Amino acid sequence: MSYDGTKFSGFQRQPNRRTIEGTLTKIVNKMAKNPEKHIVVYGSGRTDAGVHALGQVAHFNFPYNLQEKSMLKALNSMLPLDIEILKVEKVSNDFHARYDVSGKRYMYRIDLGEFRNPFKRFYTAQWKLPVDLDKINHALEDLVGEHDFTSFVASGSTARSNIRTIYEANCYIDEKSNELIFEFYGNGFLYNMVRILVGVCIEIGSGYRPENDVLRLYDVKDRRQARRTVPACGLYLKHVYYEDEDPKHPTKLPKYQR
Amino acid sequence: MSYDGTKFSGFQRQPNRRTIEGTLTKIVNKMAKNPEKHIVVYGSGRTDAGVHALGQVAHFNFPYNLQEKSMLKALNSMLPLDIEILKVEKVSNDFHARYDVSGKRYMYRIDLGEFRNPFKRFYTAQWKLPVDLDKINHALEDLVGEHDFTSFVASGSTARSNIRTIYEANCYIDEKSNELIFEFYGNGFLYNMVRILVGVCIEIGSGYRPENDVLRLYDVKDRRQARRTVPACGLYLKHVYYEDEDPKHPTKLPKYQR
Repeated sequence: MSYDGTKFSGFQRQPNRRTIEGTLTKIVNKMAKNPEKHIVVYGSGRTDAGVHALGQVAHFNFPYNLQEKSMLKALNSMLPLDIEILKVEKVSNDFHARYDVSGKRYMYRIDLGEFRNPFKRFYTAQWKLPVDLDKINHALEDLVGEHDFTSFVASGSTARSNIRTIYEANCYIDEKSNELIFEFYGNGFLYNMVRILVGVCIEIGSGYRPENDVLRLYDVKDRRQARRTVPACGLYLKHVYYEDEDPKHPTKLPKYQR
Repeated sequence: MSYDGTKFSGFQRQPNRRTIEGTLTKIVNKMAKNPEKHIVVYGSGRTDAGVHALGQVAHFNFPYNLQEKSMLKALNSMLPLDIEILKVEKVSNDFHARYDVSGKRYMYRIDLGEFRNPFKRFYTAQWKLPVDLDKINHALEDLVGEHDFTSFVASGSTARSNIRTIYEANCYIDEKSNELIFEFYGNGFLYNMVRILVGVCIEIGSGYRPENDVLRLYDVKDRRQARRTVPACGLYLKHVYYEDEDPKHPTKLPKYQR
């Protein structure tokens, strides 16, 4: 599914809050005409308030036999306009949208304009200083591989381990939109990790940090030294990978990461 | 200036409504520290509620001597995030943002996806049926030139004449965004005229009307036969032309059109 995170208090269900999970759960149960057994919707993972998705995944057990296409139409006709289901697929009984994740891909958009573009205020961060793309790419190279990301995780994290593997980390300038676009693909990301990584990289790109500061941050294991968390509105969950989907990285995730 | 029209009740000032003109007027008078003589802001023309602008123009007489760059910064720092001033220019005392207009360029965006894209819900219309671009281009050719657009003007219009000249009318499919994009450039447009024109063209493109229906509509001079007005949210005022700006069309507008 795709969603515009602007008007949601994040993915995870919370009482008296508009959330993706809450909205989906309500609609799916309505579609099943309030079944005896309440249908639970399981997402691939949470996204924070204001974070968007271009390829979030969720699963649920639906009590009736419905064609994939009919389910797709029914969901989209009942869901609010800020959530769109892109695809519906019947899966085996043992599939789990969260436990079977093998990787995730995130995008982060930064507008480089001097003033805030009205059409981007909910969809990009903004950075007015000159950036050196070579310096950013140097930093991104240091991110690829298996590392302890303790310096790059927000304090609310409940992860059992801060070790994650980043497969790809790219950055380019889209001239047409005047945006700096980051992409990260890895086997998993800790709480706020992408937003902290982007913050460090953009500071390196503008000369606020030495080029090899990522290596130092691995060593110090101190979240405060990574400083800023860039805004939620620039972040997009682009794709969720499941086992064997990407033959280059067919990881079954270690238990501690799930 | 550029603005996201979603949260405005159109350009024109109205009591107890959030409008572009009202917002600008308030800020400009605040910047002048509530001058003895209230500063009036004159726009090139109105846009309706929900209509966006990429290049709207307005003028006002500011009582203090301020550099263009300082005025630009001051305005953008005080304006809400859904209006952005792109450029500030000192003009001669006899310049008038509305009376000196020689042409306008509008864009209209239609998403062709089957379901509503969450990121486009305030920024494009939607059309699910197949469209034949050749048929649309045939219709657009019939629009170019000087015509009586009585069939294409909404009932609220106060124009003294319904004769306008369209210089350019184009349509293409942007494959990347899966959108049908219209562009119209003419010496002036009547109330709702672009939205009615797009409605007729898209119906021709999907086979609901014969290819040469525009010519028939010129003749019948009956707005009801043009039927649908496509939604405001797909419309963008792209550029306002002033005298001699476009040497191909250096029209000083006839009085009845101002």
